[in-house]
Amino acid sequence: MASFTVGDYLLKRLQEMGVNHLFGVPGDYNLQFLDRVISHPEIAWVGCANELNAAYAADGYARCNGAAALLTTFGVGELSAINGIAGSYAEYLPVIHIVGAPSSKAQQQGDCVHHSLGDGDFGHFIRMAQEVCVATAQLSAENATAEIDRVIISAMQAKRPGYLMLSVDVAQIDVEPPTQQLNFTLQSSPQARVDFQLAAETLLSSAQRVSLLADFLALRCQQQAALTDLRAERAIPCASLLMGKGVLDEQQPGYVGTYAGKASEGNVSALIEQVDVTICVGVRFTDTLTAGFTQQFTAEKLIDLQLESASVAGQHFAIGMDEALEVLLTLFQRYASRWSLAPAALPCIPVEDAAYISQNAFWRAMQTFIQPGDIILADQGTAAFGAAALRLPSQAQLLVQPLWGSIGYTLPAAFGAQTAKPDQRVILIIGDGSAQLTIQELGSMLRDNQQPIIFLLNNEGYTVERAIHGATQRYNDIAQWNWTALPQALSLHGQAQSWRISETVQLQAVMARLAEPQRLTLVEVVMQKDDLPPLLRKVTACLNQRNSG
Amino acid sequence: MASFTVGDYLLKRLQEMGVNHLFGVPGDYNLQFLDRVISHPEIAWVGCANELNAAYAADGYARCNGAAALLTTFGVGELSAINGIAGSYAEYLPVIHIVGAPSSKAQQQGDCVHHSLGDGDFGHFIRMAQEVCVATAQLSAENATAEIDRVIISAMQAKRPGYLMLSVDVAQIDVEPPTQQLNFTLQSSPQARVDFQLAAETLLSSAQRVSLLADFLALRCQQQAALTDLRAERAIPCASLLMGKGVLDEQQPGYVGTYAGKASEGNVSALIEQVDVTICVGVRFTDTLTAGFTQQFTAEKLIDLQLESASVAGQHFAIGMDEALEVLLTLFQRYASRWSLAPAALPCIPVEDAAYISQNAFWRAMQTFIQPGDIILADQGTAAFGAAALRLPSQAQLLVQPLWGSIGYTLPAAFGAQTAKPDQRVILIIGDGSAQLTIQELGSMLRDNQQPIIFLLNNEGYTVERAIHGATQRYNDIAQWNWTALPQALSLHGQAQSWRISETVQLQAVMARLAEPQRLTLVEVVMQKDDLPPLLRKVTACLNQRNSG
Repeated sequence: MASFTVGDYLLKRLQEMGVNHLFGVPGDYNLQFLDRVISHPEIAWVGCANELNAAYAADGYARCNGAAALLTTFGVGELSAINGIAGSYAEYLPVIHIVGAPSSKAQQQGDCVHHSLGDGDFGHFIRMAQEVCVATAQLSAENATAEIDRVIISAMQAKRPGYLMLSVDVAQIDVEPPTQQLNFTLQSSPQARVDFQLAAETLLSSAQRVSLLADFLALRCQQQAALTDLRAERAIPCASLLMGKGVLDEQQPGYVGTYAGKASEGNVSALIEQVDVTICVGVRFTDTLTAGFTQQFTAEKLIDLQLESASVAGQHFAIGMDEALEVLLTLFQRYASRWSLAPAALPCIPVEDAAYISQNAFWRAMQTFIQPGDIILADQGTAAFGAAALRLPSQAQLLVQPLWGSIGYTLPAAFGAQTAKPDQRVILIIGDGSAQLTIQELGSMLRDNQQPIIFLLNNEGYTVERAIHGATQRYNDIAQWNWTALPQALSLHGQAQSWRISETVQLQAVMARLAEPQRLTLVEVVMQKDDLPPLLRKVTACLNQRNSG
Repeated sequence: MASFTVGDYLLKRLQEMGVNHLFGVPGDYNLQFLDRVISHPEIAWVGCANELNAAYAADGYARCNGAAALLTTFGVGELSAINGIAGSYAEYLPVIHIVGAPSSKAQQQGDCVHHSLGDGDFGHFIRMAQEVCVATAQLSAENATAEIDRVIISAMQAKRPGYLMLSVDVAQIDVEPPTQQLNFTLQSSPQARVDFQLAAETLLSSAQRVSLLADFLALRCQQQAALTDLRAERAIPCASLLMGKGVLDEQQPGYVGTYAGKASEGNVSALIEQVDVTICVGVRFTDTLTAGFTQQFTAEKLIDLQLESASVAGQHFAIGMDEALEVLLTLFQRYASRWSLAPAALPCIPVEDAAYISQNAFWRAMQTFIQPGDIILADQGTAAFGAAALRLPSQAQLLVQPLWGSIGYTLPAAFGAQTAKPDQRVILIIGDGSAQLTIQELGSMLRDNQQPIIFLLNNEGYTVERAIHGATQRYNDIAQWNWTALPQALSLHGQAQSWRISETVQLQAVMARLAEPQRLTLVEVVMQKDDLPPLLRKVTACLNQRNSG
């Protein structure tokens, strides 16, 4: 093991990305590389129950850690994971997907080997990966180190997945260790910065009402602190979209709520839209987050910052988000004192008097349960759209996947998030229909002695779909499980506690015991089949109309 | 519902394929189509816990039923299923994958809708499907009926998956019902038949020793009866490869065992190879089934029948397998009396005297347990390679996936097989590492009151991988589960029984009670970490060498 191989080179580069854990499933084409992982002093192997779950875990890890890596085997493994990779692509997470592949010789000969389609073509799966990765490479003796660097730099800069096909023999080839660290930063030209500043100043200097709308791409660029600084200059009305919720400190003055187009609560949409200038930071308008594209903005009044470019009143500039925010800070310091302050009142979750646990009752209880520093994951469906109404404590993080919207994603993502942040409280809120897709990763949580708090919303099926179409159709039913028995079944030695509750007082009693849980906790919350958070009711009505029209 | 829509047209064509069940997971882009499925008098909806499992279930169904269909939603659903579809492609199963997609209008406008990558390109996933399907189509108002017919005919003729992208609006368009049934048969030219007969006769008329090797493509073409007829003429030595095991009646005289190149038991390889002519029917030589391509055949002595072509001593003919077998029957009637008979002795599983359940002890017990008509599924790993040594009862079927080799496949496939054949006994043999990937489909079995018998081989991890590389490495360990608690956890109302056994006498006692089980049964069989069926020991040694070389 004294030599330095392509495998070692790759691990070194992963470390430079900030990756300390490698998620995945072993397979006979990646075992030799796995030997190097196991013997690596700083990168830990995290075996998962299946590959899709491993990809979701890596995505969740990347959301908490900035980047992640995933190892699968050729064909069967990588294709099982590819939906997770596609989610990372859609929602901008740099996940390096390493695929252990048959030997170069077997590939050159077109051998009919296991995990291939049997047709001698070993290019099928890298071509599939190209659709959902920003960069892909088939590593060889000649190109390995250069291609590893290219794919990793592309992934880190674009915040999107990269794919490396690593044959068993290539992984074992000796190479020189890298002499320099990789550089992931993008530098704008000084002229672009000057031009952007001039254009933004023209708008902002004459404005009286300015609002700020921030979204997930600002999270991916880790601009939370820059946004806090900006807002410290003036408490203008600020909102985030659900996908980027948490990017703004919601306890800081000026925060008005979650923006959702015409489906926004209270007067959030007016506060953000009806102004002289709206500053959008990392915003992407998607159907479910805008109740079907009901946002009302005119390009002339927009300053829009994206990852590597910005536009002001429709004019484009090649400037990165971080530099554009630096420029805006200068302009805030100059002009913000003239701008209207946000009103103090915030929309809040209505009180309901039912004994059973309504959606409103659940989210009101959740509002008081969450603490600074919590990592909250809410699965697509009632969970994510309910979470939109929360006012997050400072330093709390919300993980949702509303664009890609792959149900079941958050359970393995919670495993990944807890792996990245072992000392933070992880709270997973997931429906029964969703949890069935990926339940086996509960076993990995227990194996690793993780202590997440899982609220399993049992509404007997796909409630979000019932709301869209087929409220009583059998296809929206699911197999009914004995949820509270699951943690004990999925672990031989792990510590877990479970409750099944159906009344609001029980929810409050359980939550009181969970301030600092000492073991994995599963709370099965029995809810009504047709109960929806108010935002989701508006969104599903719109989706049904779009699907029928 | 009086109108006849594209959705109805598609269901009509599925019925013509022999499909009576549609597997899948609902999603908001396929709910309208699902309404037509639910109201269909003869096609039943079978909801699965996740899409990969649904694809595996469809594959298992197709192996028992000749064809299958799968319904998922756009992006998230179809990509979760794509590894299962790739397996159906590699191993030749006609599975029609129907994908509910966003409206044509949303696609034309390039809307940033959920389940898309957000880039306005709705072609990513059909391009991915093209790598693992024989035919794909994006259905539109103009092309829907013609494209449905084209894709289904291609899939049935090639025995491979077809892909149909069905937008919510297209599914609801009114069309004319079909006036004629689809025709899936391929007809060879009379001349090709004559030429093939001439060439085959030249070889067979002068031969003294003739052997027969049959494999999975003969199963896919349903040529079991034709092979029985051929062998009834003369009990020449016959063997199958593991992938096609069950295609030959193993109780019929002449059967000598499972052929595995140099890794074959006893004198099987000599009986098949060292002859004047070997007739191969639907054979594909793959690495794991030949211990790394150790088969010894010369083209001059081969008659090789494939799906739509045949070759004789290296000369090719455009004749389908069924017609080629008809020709061979004539030649058998003319010449077979001259050919040597197979010896009567068969290799059998060695006796071992250990109290613990060794691989040998398990498979000896299994040999006496299996009955005519059983459907046996053995997962990739110790299960499939152990099953290779079984002598199957008549009419028994073995489902294995050794080329694609996706671990976990057989558990949902058993669900699909039992759905296709509710009155046959389904026996699933699967390792603990494999079962973790797809365990949730146990819940669907229980929901549907299925009564499979599951032997869960608990050897604490990926034993097949330990044998290839890293015997004691941590990456071959898995989370340890409380297996016998699982059936009760995965069902609220279902009937199940579980045992955990570690001694041979217990195995025999349990098997005695399972002749006609009245409920789902899970038997956790505790085995040694490093114990392997003899065939697998030879195969893994070869794989390790190929991966290291």
